[in-house]
Amino acid sequence: MRPAQEHFVGFDAQTAASAVFRAHEGGKLVIQSTMPLTDRASLSLAYTPGVAEVCSAIAGDEALARTYTWRSRLVAVVSDGTAVLGLGNIGPAAALPVMEGKAALFREFAGLNSVPIVLATTDVDEIVDTVVRMAPSFGGINLEDISAPRCFEIEERLRDRLSIPVFHDDQHGTAVVVLAALRNAAAVTGRTLGDLRVVVSGAGAAGVACTKILLAAGIGDIAVADSKGVLHTGRQDLTSVKADLAAATNRSALTGSLVSALDGADVFLGLSAGLIDEDAVRKMASDAIIFALANPNPEVDPEVAHRHAAIVATGRSDYPNQINNVLAFPGIFAGAFDADARAITENMKLAAASALSEVVADELAPEHIVPSPFDPRVAPAVAAAVARQASIDGVARA
Amino acid sequence: MRPAQEHFVGFDAQTAASAVFRAHEGGKLVIQSTMPLTDRASLSLAYTPGVAEVCSAIAGDEALARTYTWRSRLVAVVSDGTAVLGLGNIGPAAALPVMEGKAALFREFAGLNSVPIVLATTDVDEIVDTVVRMAPSFGGINLEDISAPRCFEIEERLRDRLSIPVFHDDQHGTAVVVLAALRNAAAVTGRTLGDLRVVVSGAGAAGVACTKILLAAGIGDIAVADSKGVLHTGRQDLTSVKADLAAATNRSALTGSLVSALDGADVFLGLSAGLIDEDAVRKMASDAIIFALANPNPEVDPEVAHRHAAIVATGRSDYPNQINNVLAFPGIFAGAFDADARAITENMKLAAASALSEVVADELAPEHIVPSPFDPRVAPAVAAAVARQASIDGVARA
Repeated sequence: MRPAQEHFVGFDAQTAASAVFRAHEGGKLVIQSTMPLTDRASLSLAYTPGVAEVCSAIAGDEALARTYTWRSRLVAVVSDGTAVLGLGNIGPAAALPVMEGKAALFREFAGLNSVPIVLATTDVDEIVDTVVRMAPSFGGINLEDISAPRCFEIEERLRDRLSIPVFHDDQHGTAVVVLAALRNAAAVTGRTLGDLRVVVSGAGAAGVACTKILLAAGIGDIAVADSKGVLHTGRQDLTSVKADLAAATNRSALTGSLVSALDGADVFLGLSAGLIDEDAVRKMASDAIIFALANPNPEVDPEVAHRHAAIVATGRSDYPNQINNVLAFPGIFAGAFDADARAITENMKLAAASALSEVVADELAPEHIVPSPFDPRVAPAVAAAVARQASIDGVARA
Repeated sequence: MRPAQEHFVGFDAQTAASAVFRAHEGGKLVIQSTMPLTDRASLSLAYTPGVAEVCSAIAGDEALARTYTWRSRLVAVVSDGTAVLGLGNIGPAAALPVMEGKAALFREFAGLNSVPIVLATTDVDEIVDTVVRMAPSFGGINLEDISAPRCFEIEERLRDRLSIPVFHDDQHGTAVVVLAALRNAAAVTGRTLGDLRVVVSGAGAAGVACTKILLAAGIGDIAVADSKGVLHTGRQDLTSVKADLAAATNRSALTGSLVSALDGADVFLGLSAGLIDEDAVRKMASDAIIFALANPNPEVDPEVAHRHAAIVATGRSDYPNQINNVLAFPGIFAGAFDADARAITENMKLAAASALSEVVADELAPEHIVPSPFDPRVAPAVAAAVARQASIDGVARA
């Protein structure tokens, strides 16, 4: 018998009747067949005996699987449930509704098939082995909501072992959209990326990936802070990932707090949920740019931010300039699949960011530095740029 | 670049244009979202921020995942591609079209969602670990086309480690339909199961499972033959699975060939593709029953069989009495899911067979011992019997 629901504090009949719970009843995904199987003729085409011809052909030339199976446009959305939304480590079952939602977004925004795979392990070796073994079922791997620093090693090892796209969206999806938005924010305020001094709050998955893509895009002056202050090479408490980041950033050799680093900074990039008060924001440079991306509570209250910054972006849908990963990942996977790319290179991410910023290049305004998530131009533009770059980078097989 | 197709013998433009290949272009499955995600309101219900409420509820009570995710009616069709149709060990990519077809059958015949998972390993430990780790994504595991004897150990270990249905269809789906058909064949010829002396050709996945279910259903006199002859306890060349089967069968202590065992037998059950000539069939008892299930070439030519047997069944759709697993597995999983069963017990398989035979109880004829695969009464009848038996057996949670 199911455990009695009355023992779960907070879940009751009223909760179950809410619009959110009603929308989730039965789950959010369905799998359909592309052809009806209602008579012997259709069964003999789609199943035995006909299917044996297709199997034999693929056994002779595995590349034919791209044409004659669904996997070449199928994404596995893989999570161990350790870093889900703002909820943290809630485990695989509780993470499943998010992964179903992600799969629904792949369908809605790029027409791709996508399957949630939540894992009953948080061990790096076990996750890597599991994904490698099931990889022949899929065309690409979207890693999701896996906590740092394990997410870095898992992605790196999967990229080494697989010849299909592997993409940790919490890192790179965020990074691509942040870069696109920041390029446009700089343009709106009459600057280029190279002019900007950036302070990043947060050295988790998104903080690391955003910093790397901003460096790759030509921003030379970046300081990254974790909860203990700015990362610098003198700190003894850093993980290897943070130590690498400290070595690659902070050219002014700052050693103090996040707040002290903000003094005179052009850009605040919040990826940590740590709140910043108005006094700190006040000390930023003129025409400051504030991306306060924590959800649901931005690191800087948007009202406060607007008093001191020329451009404000958040992760929320109820303010302008929403930094939303859905602007990136559907088009990135679609482009990689179009090219039959064996990997997603750094240049493909940069190309995605450029394409995304260009979608609104002719419409730029302080409250319009990125397209709406529902702008139908986005995914095709990103996909085309990513596929083109895959060819340039020599990772395209199509 | 894709390997040049001209190097694959047998695949050319004409092949690609055939109806079978055209039916497989792009694969046979699509995943859809249950709600459109075309505006902020729908996104906030199905994805952030609304989804967090559902995640939190499941984190507090995992049983809620049954109601609020898709997994409770989602089957993983898992294969390592080692025993695919008549093709043998063709690997995971080449097996994928079969698994897509199987998933399409789950949708068409029972309205269930199903995802093909093909694995890049044939190691028993690795397969078991991989399936256990991804199990939180699914409501049940259908093992498919995994070669014997590994399939026995894999299924047994997964049943031990998981509290969701695990079902190797090549074993138990076949066994359920064979039992249903044999019960009706006996009835048509005025006998009961206990009256029959049965000879089984083949001691692989299907042979082992069919023999076990026939024993459980009350057939006491069964001889099983592999390619070296009848299994008996004096043979030194048997795997442990075959040794167990030898000990449980062959009460007449036969030691000879399959053909010699057929002398006077009531039933021939062919699950091996080894051809039997007319002289052997001629020596069977009067009112003989011949199930020659190898595809595409039955062990006994149906014309020959009809000269000497009262009832003939094959695996082919172009003869009467088609023994087709699709008569069993959709309803079995649907019933297990209806009951939220934590396992599929032996009694549930027996109940499925009884329900299947009863569907045509009032219509029995020598050429109508099982329903058509497209008979809409089948899956609901099987599902109801399986769910009822799950409650009786104490494995139902719903």
